[in-house]
Amino acid sequence: MIITQINVTPVAFKDPPLLNAAGVHEPWALRTIVEVITDEGLTGLGETYGDLGHLTKVRECAEVLIGLDVHATNQMYARIAATVGDAVSDLHGLTGAATKEKSVDRVFSPFEVASLDIRGKAAGVPVVDLLGGRVRDAVPYSAYLFYKWAGHPGAEPDRFGAALDPEGVVEQASLFIKEYGFTSIKLKGGVFEPDQEIAATQALHEAFPGVPLRLDPNAVWSVDTSIRVGRELDGVLEYLEDPTPDIAGMAAVAAQVSMPLATNMCVVTPEHLPPAIAARAIGVLLLDHHYWGGLVRTAHVASLCETFGLELSMHSNSHLGISLAAMTHLAAATPNLTSACDTHTPWQNGQDVVAPGALSFVDGAVPVPAGPGLGVELDRDALAVMHEQYLTCGVTARDDTTYLRRFEPAFTAERPRW
Amino acid sequence: MIITQINVTPVAFKDPPLLNAAGVHEPWALRTIVEVITDEGLTGLGETYGDLGHLTKVRECAEVLIGLDVHATNQMYARIAATVGDAVSDLHGLTGAATKEKSVDRVFSPFEVASLDIRGKAAGVPVVDLLGGRVRDAVPYSAYLFYKWAGHPGAEPDRFGAALDPEGVVEQASLFIKEYGFTSIKLKGGVFEPDQEIAATQALHEAFPGVPLRLDPNAVWSVDTSIRVGRELDGVLEYLEDPTPDIAGMAAVAAQVSMPLATNMCVVTPEHLPPAIAARAIGVLLLDHHYWGGLVRTAHVASLCETFGLELSMHSNSHLGISLAAMTHLAAATPNLTSACDTHTPWQNGQDVVAPGALSFVDGAVPVPAGPGLGVELDRDALAVMHEQYLTCGVTARDDTTYLRRFEPAFTAERPRW
Repeated sequence: MIITQINVTPVAFKDPPLLNAAGVHEPWALRTIVEVITDEGLTGLGETYGDLGHLTKVRECAEVLIGLDVHATNQMYARIAATVGDAVSDLHGLTGAATKEKSVDRVFSPFEVASLDIRGKAAGVPVVDLLGGRVRDAVPYSAYLFYKWAGHPGAEPDRFGAALDPEGVVEQASLFIKEYGFTSIKLKGGVFEPDQEIAATQALHEAFPGVPLRLDPNAVWSVDTSIRVGRELDGVLEYLEDPTPDIAGMAAVAAQVSMPLATNMCVVTPEHLPPAIAARAIGVLLLDHHYWGGLVRTAHVASLCETFGLELSMHSNSHLGISLAAMTHLAAATPNLTSACDTHTPWQNGQDVVAPGALSFVDGAVPVPAGPGLGVELDRDALAVMHEQYLTCGVTARDDTTYLRRFEPAFTAERPRW
Repeated sequence: MIITQINVTPVAFKDPPLLNAAGVHEPWALRTIVEVITDEGLTGLGETYGDLGHLTKVRECAEVLIGLDVHATNQMYARIAATVGDAVSDLHGLTGAATKEKSVDRVFSPFEVASLDIRGKAAGVPVVDLLGGRVRDAVPYSAYLFYKWAGHPGAEPDRFGAALDPEGVVEQASLFIKEYGFTSIKLKGGVFEPDQEIAATQALHEAFPGVPLRLDPNAVWSVDTSIRVGRELDGVLEYLEDPTPDIAGMAAVAAQVSMPLATNMCVVTPEHLPPAIAARAIGVLLLDHHYWGGLVRTAHVASLCETFGLELSMHSNSHLGISLAAMTHLAAATPNLTSACDTHTPWQNGQDVVAPGALSFVDGAVPVPAGPGLGVELDRDALAVMHEQYLTCGVTARDDTTYLRRFEPAFTAERPRW
């Protein structure tokens, strides 16, 4: 099955004003859709970041993959490593300094996912079966709550409403649980002073007793603040996610709080694993096949985490259905992934590039698409609309900070802030 | 592709009197051949140890896998884990105390390999393509030298002749290199006093300048002796393999010698990796899919080794062509396997259960069988002969120590000895 053509299509979809430590989501979120087409006519899908620097690398690398067999992922990786050249600037400021290795893993990912999609279709099996087969029939996701404005400035309020205090956060959780059936809750923090976010977390704990809770301030706290928050939320949090920057800071916090620390910021590439493990910096790694180099490489990392006693969950950026399908297949095949995964899906509010019907939430979990392959197909009309939105929306790279500064000129995204 | 039948066939083949720290190889070596048959009529092959305790577990587990899809390796593993029960006694005394986890990985391995063989056949691709695709077209193996008697006591000398001093060892290396084209050499030591083995290694170094050399005394030396040997062979050895028992001992040696230490004894299961890495006990891990739980789990371990900066080579017990094919597919798909692998193939002296033609040595390397699947087929006549040999040979478990004691009653296999 030789790759004869690759279509790379940037898309934009509407995004609510979700607040976070870096600023606030702009009105448009970007993704890149990758279609890999083989000589036998099978097509595979991948999805990745839409930022222009990354998109440019993905386009360049698509050209050098023509002629490869879809099984030849080692060769794919080598060709991409030879093509990527300079590092892409770090995406969204979450994962530290840009490196060539990180860029290679990120650019490789959508092509690898698309190749697995094709291999699954050819074999007549879902992608989960190419990863060892399912250990669960549906993958639980968490209600991913954000502080948010009622709507983007100058626009109508969105249907989710404002969430700027504990009551608003609990209301948002109620809406998500009612609509999706989630049985775990994650609150994106790092927006308000820690005491307010402690209060919101405690309000969630009281409103939803027994439901696993997480708080993620995106490393905006000092070590001392992190320890204080961790101690105040003893017995309340399932895990505390990225309270403070870097491995040394996380290790200092981990030694002083009762709950495990999770990360998708200080351990984002293989080279971070040895020092983080040696320092006992984290108890939970948040997998993300978009930057760990596709599904198989992420499965390798999952196995390493089992060997070293690290628990697993899954990280999410704003994404569409191809990514949700890929995450679901991987999570369904990962025995030691025991926490509910993150997803931004509710914030898409129904927008998608995949045809309806393949993906659904049942009691907060996504049943593994029946396949073959990823089990999702492109909705070409939706893709065309979202590509047109990309061309006209004026956003070419996510920049939550500049957008927030438009309304709060004094805002800085420095870390740590508190 | 549902598993409808599994044939488990123990076989025996003639083995020369190869000396090692545990004793000497008996006249018959045992293996178990596994054939997995699916509802669509495709058959996959696996090969594993032939010792009776292990064979019994393999037979028991074969029954519980009927009805599973060949992709469902996670389920296979879970069913085997639930079936294995008590640990199999440790095989050949090389890999430490028996544990249930080790037994599960060893029993699972041939079924997983057979499943990949079937998946490759169904997809029309070689197994290497199910593991990421080839990074090399042929896998280099080393000339695996043994001290040996001219023949088994009471029998005619075999064609390899005696090797009981440096001259005999060099002669053996010359024969193997002439017949196979090997470009690396490994000497199994632990048989004579260390000074004699140092002399043999130096003789090899002088006879084959520039050829990478290894010495493996199977942990029969004390830490002090290991350090002394390591220092005397500074600049001569590519790596020193298992000079002394356990992780602490290896770490003490590693800190005092120039060459990396390799192991297939102190790190043989995932739980050994964290302490060995923390102690800097080894520089090279010798992979072996027979006890690391099949090809995909071994690929996970290979990835972990890359993350932690461990080099890779591959371990071998006496084996037949199914194992050689499996090792070759895995090694061909492993980017960070850079040293020549071990194989006992020359000692088979042409005996095999696979039909001739698929496997060959070219300049010391085995070209990846063209496939599909493992690319080897059973020679049913040869299988029948070898099974008959199993039934009549009187050996049911490898026991080099008892066999040597028949001729040297004072022999003990204690470690360390020197």
